[in-house]
Amino acid sequence: MGNKHAIGLIDSGVGGLTVLKEALKQLPNENLIYLGDTARCPYGPRPADQVIEFTRQMTQFLVQKNIKLLVIACNTATAVALDVIRQEVAIPVVGVILPGTRAAVKTTQNHQVAVIGTEGTIKSASYQKAIQSKMPNVKVYSLACPKFVSLVESNQFLSPVAKKVVAETLLPLQYSGMDTLILGCTHYPLLRPIIQNVVGSQVHLIDSGAETVGEVSVLLDYFEIANSIDNKTPNYEFYTTGSTKMFDEIANEWLDNISVKSKHVDLERD
Amino acid sequence: MGNKHAIGLIDSGVGGLTVLKEALKQLPNENLIYLGDTARCPYGPRPADQVIEFTRQMTQFLVQKNIKLLVIACNTATAVALDVIRQEVAIPVVGVILPGTRAAVKTTQNHQVAVIGTEGTIKSASYQKAIQSKMPNVKVYSLACPKFVSLVESNQFLSPVAKKVVAETLLPLQYSGMDTLILGCTHYPLLRPIIQNVVGSQVHLIDSGAETVGEVSVLLDYFEIANSIDNKTPNYEFYTTGSTKMFDEIANEWLDNISVKSKHVDLERD
Repeated sequence: MGNKHAIGLIDSGVGGLTVLKEALKQLPNENLIYLGDTARCPYGPRPADQVIEFTRQMTQFLVQKNIKLLVIACNTATAVALDVIRQEVAIPVVGVILPGTRAAVKTTQNHQVAVIGTEGTIKSASYQKAIQSKMPNVKVYSLACPKFVSLVESNQFLSPVAKKVVAETLLPLQYSGMDTLILGCTHYPLLRPIIQNVVGSQVHLIDSGAETVGEVSVLLDYFEIANSIDNKTPNYEFYTTGSTKMFDEIANEWLDNISVKSKHVDLERD
Repeated sequence: MGNKHAIGLIDSGVGGLTVLKEALKQLPNENLIYLGDTARCPYGPRPADQVIEFTRQMTQFLVQKNIKLLVIACNTATAVALDVIRQEVAIPVVGVILPGTRAAVKTTQNHQVAVIGTEGTIKSASYQKAIQSKMPNVKVYSLACPKFVSLVESNQFLSPVAKKVVAETLLPLQYSGMDTLILGCTHYPLLRPIIQNVVGSQVHLIDSGAETVGEVSVLLDYFEIANSIDNKTPNYEFYTTGSTKMFDEIANEWLDNISVKSKHVDLERD
């Protein structure tokens, strides 16, 4: 039997696809619906009230599609909107910050952890607070990287420009002594090879995607809403508020196993 | 701040200590209360109604101590009583079967999985159903090992007798081709070296303790009931319905880092 309703994933743009990629791997029975608010990306520099409102609009769009669980696959939105959205909807809602925190706390050996994210995420200090509540003796270095999201959304994440921007932006972490670096934005795993090259192979990069989907897997069992296999291929739907062409290019480059053909949606129309 | 109420763990005897050992490692900030129903162990051969009633009594004892989350650290009780107990108490309740199942499904490469457990657990077919709902092409071999719990409870789990009993009991799995063996009873990890020796090093043994505590960690964050560090050593309490002397001997041999001095409790008195 099983619950055939989809799991919804939302992000300011294509970044949440890094979480969806893990869901394809870890939850092969589940139907998935993805919504990227590409037209209004980036969320990072926006005031918290606006991010909450946009997140609420995305949530409503997916709730109307009868999703059974929502993943806020965007760190900026998780930082400011997770608690609000949880109070407003009846389904379980999962963010990406606590899973990333759990992974970092498990990983660090020298208790020097750095977090990179958007201005909104870094300003919220969500990672710092979460890490220090779990392990107070960890030194947390926080750095906003305002240019990274645009590099990804414009499909330049493997370009020479990206290499230069990443190297310059991460300079302040050079002498931090970090052994663990949290990619505190779901767009950043697309820049992972470049980031790893800049910080050196001795630094563990934490991509909260895998850990977030692990949390989803636990909650599907806990709330008894997992789908079971019925020999049908699961259904995957993709929506973007921006250009479907650009979205599909990036999605099809990033997701090897499936073919993405997104639909356009206008969240401000309603 | 954080929620200082304890996490409760219950088992038919000392087996749940294998889950508690993982909790000490993964959740170093949490207060823990353990209750082993040693006087009425083993649960395996008992009718389901009786296991449900005993589990209910243990649960009530810990609920009166204001635990914030309950781990049914016993496969027999999880198999027959988890759904009932969840409906009866207001706190989150975690069992050991689904975590073990998730670990097994992630581990197996050749899709040949064996499960060993008590008569009650094997009769319930809980593992078989859970595994096949997640991965229908897995062949599941199930084997009841009625003598194993007594070997552990009598503190003979490293004895020559244990070696002989384990080798004889596991004979039917000899040609199964399993690459993954679920230790579907929380007592069995105490027999782990002997079991591994009998089945060979190429077989992955799944001890659901680590995965169960991972689930607890997710739920503490999800329900916002984790404790935070306040530089105090957490409090650990142990109760047994049987001999405190025997309980402490086994607990202190199994748990290296803490010193256990259990208290006796009579669940049938009330």
